[in-house]
Amino acid sequence: MRVYDVIEHKKNGRSLTNEMIDFFVRGVTDNSIPDYQISALLMAICINGMDRNEIFYFTEAMASSGRRNDLSAISHNVVDKHSSGGVGDKCTLIIGPIVSSLGIPFAKLSGKGLGHTGGTIDKLDSVKGLRTSLKYDEFVSQVQDIGIAISSQTGDLAPADKKLYAIRDVTATIDSIPLIAASIMSKKIASGAANILLDVKCGSGAFMKVPDKAFELAETMMDIGHMAGRNMTALVTDMDQPLGRNIGNSLEVIEACEVLNGKGPDDITELCVALSAGLLKLSGYRPKVSYADDARESINNGRAYNKFRDFIYAQGGAFEGSSLYPIFRNSSKYLFDIKAEESGYIFAIDSQSVGISALELGAGRKTQDDDPDHSVGIVMHRKAGERVTVGDRFMTLHYNLADIPEEAVRIARSSVKISVEKPVLKPMILKVFESDMT
Amino acid sequence: MRVYDVIEHKKNGRSLTNEMIDFFVRGVTDNSIPDYQISALLMAICINGMDRNEIFYFTEAMASSGRRNDLSAISHNVVDKHSSGGVGDKCTLIIGPIVSSLGIPFAKLSGKGLGHTGGTIDKLDSVKGLRTSLKYDEFVSQVQDIGIAISSQTGDLAPADKKLYAIRDVTATIDSIPLIAASIMSKKIASGAANILLDVKCGSGAFMKVPDKAFELAETMMDIGHMAGRNMTALVTDMDQPLGRNIGNSLEVIEACEVLNGKGPDDITELCVALSAGLLKLSGYRPKVSYADDARESINNGRAYNKFRDFIYAQGGAFEGSSLYPIFRNSSKYLFDIKAEESGYIFAIDSQSVGISALELGAGRKTQDDDPDHSVGIVMHRKAGERVTVGDRFMTLHYNLADIPEEAVRIARSSVKISVEKPVLKPMILKVFESDMT
Repeated sequence: MRVYDVIEHKKNGRSLTNEMIDFFVRGVTDNSIPDYQISALLMAICINGMDRNEIFYFTEAMASSGRRNDLSAISHNVVDKHSSGGVGDKCTLIIGPIVSSLGIPFAKLSGKGLGHTGGTIDKLDSVKGLRTSLKYDEFVSQVQDIGIAISSQTGDLAPADKKLYAIRDVTATIDSIPLIAASIMSKKIASGAANILLDVKCGSGAFMKVPDKAFELAETMMDIGHMAGRNMTALVTDMDQPLGRNIGNSLEVIEACEVLNGKGPDDITELCVALSAGLLKLSGYRPKVSYADDARESINNGRAYNKFRDFIYAQGGAFEGSSLYPIFRNSSKYLFDIKAEESGYIFAIDSQSVGISALELGAGRKTQDDDPDHSVGIVMHRKAGERVTVGDRFMTLHYNLADIPEEAVRIARSSVKISVEKPVLKPMILKVFESDMT
Repeated sequence: MRVYDVIEHKKNGRSLTNEMIDFFVRGVTDNSIPDYQISALLMAICINGMDRNEIFYFTEAMASSGRRNDLSAISHNVVDKHSSGGVGDKCTLIIGPIVSSLGIPFAKLSGKGLGHTGGTIDKLDSVKGLRTSLKYDEFVSQVQDIGIAISSQTGDLAPADKKLYAIRDVTATIDSIPLIAASIMSKKIASGAANILLDVKCGSGAFMKVPDKAFELAETMMDIGHMAGRNMTALVTDMDQPLGRNIGNSLEVIEACEVLNGKGPDDITELCVALSAGLLKLSGYRPKVSYADDARESINNGRAYNKFRDFIYAQGGAFEGSSLYPIFRNSSKYLFDIKAEESGYIFAIDSQSVGISALELGAGRKTQDDDPDHSVGIVMHRKAGERVTVGDRFMTLHYNLADIPEEAVRIARSSVKISVEKPVLKPMILKVFESDMT
């Protein structure tokens, strides 16, 4: 078989055979196929698509390109969760402790952030002493011991996907539903949980800008998961404005602590309860009142927050005295308030712009090799639908450079639209897809 | 501007702006755009196409990526000619001398062959002492002195095209009409003749397998030429079987000499008269009888052949005694006859297979770095439509290795289909496209 013929096949709009997919993924993994042939095939897939068998087989081949875990050895009800990437999305840090406190093991391998969306591992790295690179045996032991572990993906998890993602990132072949679905699901399948919950973001700060595309992505991933024998749930959720009020690594850990203490913003609290309910149902958990009520109760009675503390300590972090928050590696030196130049309602906050502003402050990575500053970020004092009066500060930038990056201020300011009319907000949860488990 | 955005633009099916095309072609030329981004854009063009303004501007940008000649300095009636590549196509060696003998300057920069089709330069290289790498000044002087020169393209002729072709060749992005048209026309435009004749091959041995695609390619190239201010003619001609009877470098020079002496096969003689007539008309030549009759007469009265001899001598070749043929660098050692295993009519001869068989004998290049054997090749004693009786030799392979390559014999034999019924042959000239020069 020649990769030329595989490319030609897809260029002509035909379905790749299993043999072609195996051949391609093997060649990507062992570096025998040069990048320019890989990118040609990716573009052909991007434009001409893939059918469900191709998508499933491609996902399986990528999952098998490295180590495949089997977390059912721990328990059949271990849950894993994935978010397709948003701004201010610290939900993993909240829902992991919630479901774990209710007896459901939460085991998640997570990635680092790139571009305007942050990664869970970067958020955890803001905690002083906390180890985010657990060996696989440690990871499993910790799930067995305390019912929760979150660690960074190692290079042997779906290495073909890692290579392909790096090429997609520079060849404008990111926004293909088959490629996105296969990329996400290859890692989830290789991670080994039997129960997988997907949070598909939709809106200005997400890959999927419109609901139809987000629904299509959710259904495609559900389908792959089912074909791979997993229990699946997917929520399509709003990402038209950033989630919660804090953006930036340590700022997001702080907000997670607040939500776990019942003091967080409504939007993210509501979303985390819904996601937790989804995870509980998926795992086979038997609710006392209802999935959502039990999740809420675990916040109210402090068990979820206690589980969070156990988790932080287990991975090497600590808390000082009676502080709600863990001890961080560093804190930002300066604050800069952005104030309203007119009165009215916050009509919209563009998530992507807020993410890019945080990136300009140093919170994230512009390229794979960047080292994020864990202390910087943005706090939003007003969210969409709330009133603001001339002179009110509606955003505060946390930064460390003597001179604040002008670009960060400009973009942050332009991200917010103020209007006289009150906006009609989308619901936080746009749609739920569940496995038929009858 | 970022190449990422250019790729994204074409991926989404939009027309590239002139600025985008300039940026891309410049980046290809100065090696600042990596191959994997080039191949992604080529695939997007291949699938989503280009409109006529894009094709023209892309062609112009590639023509301007290196040296641009202006042969109108010699005369406004200088003609150039291009064939889209066939098997046994030695027409340049015949029609150049014909039109030059009638006073029309013929100036052609030509490429080397790759794969199953040979290149004019390789054919000329079979002649002992003949120089095919003229400096540009020499090339121009020779056209001025004797009215004809054929030299190899130098690296500074449309270097962007050279780079892009190498990538297209390994990424299954060859068979795109916009890319083929722009590739051919960028070199023709940079070569600098005001009058360009295209011979677009159609059939089993050509890029274009069916007439509709060949017509589309011809019209696309005509259009580019007109937009660039050139006089254009295109003939779409049959390549369902090889042209003439000889395939292989020195064997094709021999056949060219025979045609120029009125002793060549009918098919190639007919085609060369038609192509010569097209060139004459294009150049503004005033016919004595008709364009075609004047071309025929130049063969009959020996002037075309004399011009051929002048040309061979001018570039360093020679003839021995009264031989019709120039002195070659070497000749093949062995002959192998392929004989008919049944009686009937030659129903079809697959050009591509004959070309590949000649390649297996060593006549061509499998990769850019191969060095062709100029003496080997194939002589076809029977062509489609002719009768053959069991035991008749219908093909002779010329070779140099002690053991004949089995693959060459097998492919050559399988290229010929014998049947009881006489085939209906396509006309040699399928369609003529001419500039409206009224």
